[in-house]
Amino acid sequence: MHDRTQQTPHLTDAERIDRLRLIRSDNVGPRTFNSLIRHFGSARAALERLPDLARRGGAARSGRICSEEEARAEIAASEKIGVALVTPGEAAYPPRLATLEDPPPLLGIRGNADALTRPMIAIVGSRNASGAGLKFAGQLARDLGDAGFVVISGLARGIDQAAHRATIESGTVAVLAGGHDRIYPPEHDDLLAALLERGGAISEMPFGHVPRARDFPRRNRLISGASLGVVVIEAAHRSGSLITARMAAEQGREVFAVPGSPLDPRAAGTNELIKQGAALVTEASDVINAIAPIMGRPLMLEAREDDDEPLDFDTDPDQRERIVALLGPSPVSLDDLIRMSGLSATLVRSVLLELELAGRLERHGGGLVTLV
Amino acid sequence: MHDRTQQTPHLTDAERIDRLRLIRSDNVGPRTFNSLIRHFGSARAALERLPDLARRGGAARSGRICSEEEARAEIAASEKIGVALVTPGEAAYPPRLATLEDPPPLLGIRGNADALTRPMIAIVGSRNASGAGLKFAGQLARDLGDAGFVVISGLARGIDQAAHRATIESGTVAVLAGGHDRIYPPEHDDLLAALLERGGAISEMPFGHVPRARDFPRRNRLISGASLGVVVIEAAHRSGSLITARMAAEQGREVFAVPGSPLDPRAAGTNELIKQGAALVTEASDVINAIAPIMGRPLMLEAREDDDEPLDFDTDPDQRERIVALLGPSPVSLDDLIRMSGLSATLVRSVLLELELAGRLERHGGGLVTLV
Repeated sequence: MHDRTQQTPHLTDAERIDRLRLIRSDNVGPRTFNSLIRHFGSARAALERLPDLARRGGAARSGRICSEEEARAEIAASEKIGVALVTPGEAAYPPRLATLEDPPPLLGIRGNADALTRPMIAIVGSRNASGAGLKFAGQLARDLGDAGFVVISGLARGIDQAAHRATIESGTVAVLAGGHDRIYPPEHDDLLAALLERGGAISEMPFGHVPRARDFPRRNRLISGASLGVVVIEAAHRSGSLITARMAAEQGREVFAVPGSPLDPRAAGTNELIKQGAALVTEASDVINAIAPIMGRPLMLEAREDDDEPLDFDTDPDQRERIVALLGPSPVSLDDLIRMSGLSATLVRSVLLELELAGRLERHGGGLVTLV
Repeated sequence: MHDRTQQTPHLTDAERIDRLRLIRSDNVGPRTFNSLIRHFGSARAALERLPDLARRGGAARSGRICSEEEARAEIAASEKIGVALVTPGEAAYPPRLATLEDPPPLLGIRGNADALTRPMIAIVGSRNASGAGLKFAGQLARDLGDAGFVVISGLARGIDQAAHRATIESGTVAVLAGGHDRIYPPEHDDLLAALLERGGAISEMPFGHVPRARDFPRRNRLISGASLGVVVIEAAHRSGSLITARMAAEQGREVFAVPGSPLDPRAAGTNELIKQGAALVTEASDVINAIAPIMGRPLMLEAREDDDEPLDFDTDPDQRERIVALLGPSPVSLDDLIRMSGLSATLVRSVLLELELAGRLERHGGGLVTLV
């Protein structure tokens, strides 16, 4: 166990800009970001090696690397509307979010710093919620707010909106799927403005980024990650809220679900969650009593499996071929690749990172990868 | 462990009449019935001692003892409408019911013998059910019937009625709170006639007995006791269906509950049951999959705590005084009475039985007793 919240106690401006450049470069996500920093020692050193690594991974054309000018421009534009770009461990970074295996290396935060660091509970659910669902969401959010929790949600229509609206006074945090200047849905501009007074908004996406469909599951990872627990209110089968619930479970967060009639399709997802072990919620105390014992625990996380496992970019084309031949559209695990290729874990991991930087690899839950 | 289903393999007509007399006598319930038979060896011997025991217990006036003529008259009247009085272990006695600690010593059964001995699942719920609740009850009952289960319920309005109606073809059993000739509610006479074709009806109450309020919880004990599991559909806080669920849990039966919106008071009881550990049900497979592993188990029950603990009616007035002084309207346990009186367990148990036969003692769940 080690404490990730302390990983960047004194960050220089130059290092912040380098880190922003690295995470804004093509094919670099939080996980790759961390692997590169661990291996090369600094964002600057990693940036220098990016083109070479992507080329070795078989990039058809050179991936875009974020320039220092672009990074400075993003910081300036962000500051103009009061958005600060913070790294895990800095004071305003939501503490639970910093405990994730791969927290966003640079998080755009806006609003009331107090709200961003108080204990949060997520409320999520259908965009097409019923009147009863909206009413219950507001009621539950208000009670959780009155109990001292910050309600965090996704600023979407339906349940999200009801949860935010009910907690404008007590403090609520919106997680954005796009940049801070690209609010979705646009008609929630006013809601955002209202909640920023006492609450906040966070985004890991670049300024100016218009949210695409795939950005919403990524946004959901932050909703659950920043919270102590996630309450799902009205969710149909295969809905986005269930992705949030799954991520919450993977992140070790509590999962709560509000029941409904078996004849109501909007309750199918939440009833299913309860069957799978989520706690049934009919009132705020159901959440508070389950969360209370967790709140005292220190913000630690088990070390990630490969935290101390080195990379080695002394790979040769033949080894890369062998790995690529084993990959395809069906997800395969790192362990299987090691076994089937006969190569060392270090080499396999390094080749996968090269392929990822070349834009040829996609990572899935449970350590599974596919070739794009 | 011993097998209660075999306790009366060859019952003579005379012994059946004696047993009916004993259970129909004042202040004799299934538990006292069993204690007396165990102690005195036969119903006849117990009947002979009843007046003396009740007098020792301080009966103000002699309790009514059912005469042989009355017993014969009840058997004749029952037979006239096709009701047989059977004892645990006889072929037509519902097998799960016979595994209870204190099964009804004489059960009035009517209808199709096959339905009475097939695996049963209970469906219970509000009398004032919603349209959705009634629809779901019918749907679930039909699916369970199609899967080969007999649906057992209480012939009440609302959920009970919907569950019976949906399973008239596949076989359903109604448990009556009164005698077989005193159907409640009266308008369900037709429903009963229809379900008797392929299903059945059972009652532990005397012919001619009009059900009183306190007979319904007693009826509920048989609904859960005869079943492998109990499904509760729509139940408000503190409703009768929750008593059935509690009894089911005490009897080691599975408890299932159908969820509903937290804003629907008719779902308050079922949601609460799920919080307490009942399995959430949205479709028949939720019940069937949970029940399947149990069905193969032999019909055994752990020996009751006091099965082999003797009685001793060599009590003296002073000892009875001491026990009575310790009793009151607040429930007290047998263990506490033993400790506080300084008397032996055998003596305390014997005095309690005398008091019970005198109509001065009430027994509650968990071995607690109060003075009436």
